[in-house]
Amino acid sequence: MRDLTATETYSLAVLSAACLSILVNAWKSNGEPLFSSLAISGLAFVFSYALVLWTGDVFIKRGYKGRDMSKKSPVEIPESMGLVCALVYLLAIINFLPFAFKSHMVEVTSGAGNKDRVLEAQDIENGRFLHRFPLEKLASYGFAYATIASETILGILDDSFDMRWRHKFFIPAFAALPMLGLYFVDFGVTHVVVPLPFRPYLGELLDLGGFYYIYMAAICIFCPNSINMLAGINGIEVAQSIVIALLIVVNDILYLSPEGHPAAESHLFSIYLLLPLIGVSAALLMHNWFPARVFVGDTYCYFAGMVFAVVGILGHFSKTLLLLFIPQIFNFVYSVPQLFHIVPCPRHRLPKFNARTGLLEPSIVTFEEEKPLRPLVGEVMKLLHGLKLMRIKVDDNGRVTESTNFTLLNLWLVWRGPLREDRLAIEVLIMQSTIGLLGLWVRHSLALLLFTVDNR
Amino acid sequence: MRDLTATETYSLAVLSAACLSILVNAWKSNGEPLFSSLAISGLAFVFSYALVLWTGDVFIKRGYKGRDMSKKSPVEIPESMGLVCALVYLLAIINFLPFAFKSHMVEVTSGAGNKDRVLEAQDIENGRFLHRFPLEKLASYGFAYATIASETILGILDDSFDMRWRHKFFIPAFAALPMLGLYFVDFGVTHVVVPLPFRPYLGELLDLGGFYYIYMAAICIFCPNSINMLAGINGIEVAQSIVIALLIVVNDILYLSPEGHPAAESHLFSIYLLLPLIGVSAALLMHNWFPARVFVGDTYCYFAGMVFAVVGILGHFSKTLLLLFIPQIFNFVYSVPQLFHIVPCPRHRLPKFNARTGLLEPSIVTFEEEKPLRPLVGEVMKLLHGLKLMRIKVDDNGRVTESTNFTLLNLWLVWRGPLREDRLAIEVLIMQSTIGLLGLWVRHSLALLLFTVDNR
Repeated sequence: MRDLTATETYSLAVLSAACLSILVNAWKSNGEPLFSSLAISGLAFVFSYALVLWTGDVFIKRGYKGRDMSKKSPVEIPESMGLVCALVYLLAIINFLPFAFKSHMVEVTSGAGNKDRVLEAQDIENGRFLHRFPLEKLASYGFAYATIASETILGILDDSFDMRWRHKFFIPAFAALPMLGLYFVDFGVTHVVVPLPFRPYLGELLDLGGFYYIYMAAICIFCPNSINMLAGINGIEVAQSIVIALLIVVNDILYLSPEGHPAAESHLFSIYLLLPLIGVSAALLMHNWFPARVFVGDTYCYFAGMVFAVVGILGHFSKTLLLLFIPQIFNFVYSVPQLFHIVPCPRHRLPKFNARTGLLEPSIVTFEEEKPLRPLVGEVMKLLHGLKLMRIKVDDNGRVTESTNFTLLNLWLVWRGPLREDRLAIEVLIMQSTIGLLGLWVRHSLALLLFTVDNR
Repeated sequence: MRDLTATETYSLAVLSAACLSILVNAWKSNGEPLFSSLAISGLAFVFSYALVLWTGDVFIKRGYKGRDMSKKSPVEIPESMGLVCALVYLLAIINFLPFAFKSHMVEVTSGAGNKDRVLEAQDIENGRFLHRFPLEKLASYGFAYATIASETILGILDDSFDMRWRHKFFIPAFAALPMLGLYFVDFGVTHVVVPLPFRPYLGELLDLGGFYYIYMAAICIFCPNSINMLAGINGIEVAQSIVIALLIVVNDILYLSPEGHPAAESHLFSIYLLLPLIGVSAALLMHNWFPARVFVGDTYCYFAGMVFAVVGILGHFSKTLLLLFIPQIFNFVYSVPQLFHIVPCPRHRLPKFNARTGLLEPSIVTFEEEKPLRPLVGEVMKLLHGLKLMRIKVDDNGRVTESTNFTLLNLWLVWRGPLREDRLAIEVLIMQSTIGLLGLWVRHSLALLLFTVDNR
């Protein structure tokens, strides 16, 4: 790996200086935590950008490396560099804490008549009197950190030990335990508000009980894995995560009206966790974008996906979160026939690189005559071909001999023809952003019809 | 690695059944969290014992392996198996949470006149009303978990990337950030009680301010590294950790009088974090004891050491904690001349295995004639030799030509002569336990002289 160029060094130094001065200022003036969060995210960008470059060689040396098969002359580049981002992210979250709680610390320790209270010996054992301190918020940060750190550990293990698909799919459920534990012990509400049309039958509130925890665990399994699954071309894992993060931030901002919304705190919490993610991801993307100089590894997908699950669950907007995962949900559902081996699934399903044209084409899975598809499966695939939802080849006997692999990226190439790798990424990202914004619009318009109020 | 024997399977199954029935019972009857903690620690033992056996081959396959050079025919055995313990430990802590807070959850949700309160729609956004819920305790668990998980990540990185000594020494300070952040935001007391003799000059309380955080960071750096340094023979890392954990638990129990002590909660917190550590460590020790079938890796030392730092700091007894680290402190101070290269330091300083006798002897560092010791250093070493604090060889010119390496284990062999590996470990552990108990006795007797009250 190369070192920082002079231009990069200069730009990063200027950005760091700006962020640091914002932080110093915010600390002195008990400023808005939002500005501190932005500044810390800027610093997280700087650290990630430089550290990815500096540690690349160490990763290669230890065997975390791979070749990019969608290039004319594939060289070995570092793999699993998302680990660097995850570590910088965790550091950023911790360093943000004092800024998040500064105003409360001041109020409790020196304001409210306590200013001249003499500290007594027993306080050393019991700490400050913090009756009005938002401890539940502090606990949320602790458990959010615990969950994301656990997911990072499991990401490293996955990247190190090459786990089997059926094992690693459920990994995030373990990492989610700290958060589910917090939810169980502290928050504990397992009721959902019933949409208007169903209220005559179910009442206004429905207690899902234990199923609510299964639902939350499912979200924690789904978010990381679905990002890991919409992968295979340079930059797509990181860029789709940035798009999702930005869409959630847009949704969060809707709750930050000046008159104050009861859920505003939850959505600020979400913003504070997402801005540093955007910071470290943007830095990683600059190294991972076409033509990639590093790979991000499962660690990145797990880490980023778990951040989304955490903000969705602890911010109590997990259903809205799923709206922003529509392309990933489509990709997962579309993949099911191969994931469950109803249709043969090759080891890699990423689009095929055509070295002559330099463009990506849909990758193909062929069905041998000895192991033919079940007739029903073949008929469904012919139907999907007719609906332009895949491309198949049929021999003279009407037998399906090959089809494109069942992934969104291959389907996009079926629709749009061969594309250069970065072009494919950009088009899919535009599609994702459009669907996400539409989803948010529908969610806030339709809520009024299904519930009595839009809880925005 | 072998599989579980029939006897092992049977014993582990019986232990699991006993622990599970305790847990079920505790849940139904809102029983003492202490029993739940014991039962969960028993389960943690079972899981660790089995998982270390089952995952050993995977560790070897991925390159986490080493040869035990203190054996006649060294074979490759898995390295870094402490990672398994750390993961089981984290899982245990999370599963303990509902039991720790069960009584509070009941009180808040169904007691105190709330029993028939109808849940309303806005509760879904705001959660239960938990005015009397001990959120500061919950936050402590979250940040303790976050700190230990971070240290585990850094342990894995250390074991994976072979970091340099001067880099990895400071690693724990980063992992400690979540805890220091919690302390800063929530507890915030940086005053210490001044011992009686100094009160005329310093007053009753002294505010250490920022230095207090440096002191806490130093504890977090010291505990993991000092365990990592008193290493080199089978079982010693794990067994010394178990001894320290038991000694802290003994100290904690002193605060659990029936009439109630203001610090009782902190010491219960400490017990709840230490019992699972003892559980996973005991399981690991059974595989790591002479002759070892697995190595524990830096991951174990970091993880266990950080648990001690966490309970010492969040339980507010960090000075007592240091009393229980006297052998480790001695070993560190004694090592300083080699650590800082005042005296040459070979790559490995573990005792030397004599294949003829099968016993361990002190390992030797020789000083070449081209690079002689500074005269003062030589004289000090002759003095230490006279005090039986090391063994040196002197040539006819009075030049020191060789000495035993500067570690406690080598010094013990200087005193006691060649010993078999397990005998050396047992003797050092007995010495450690004796000093620890003495330290606790002195601490609780002397406290009355130095402070107005023993805060036991």
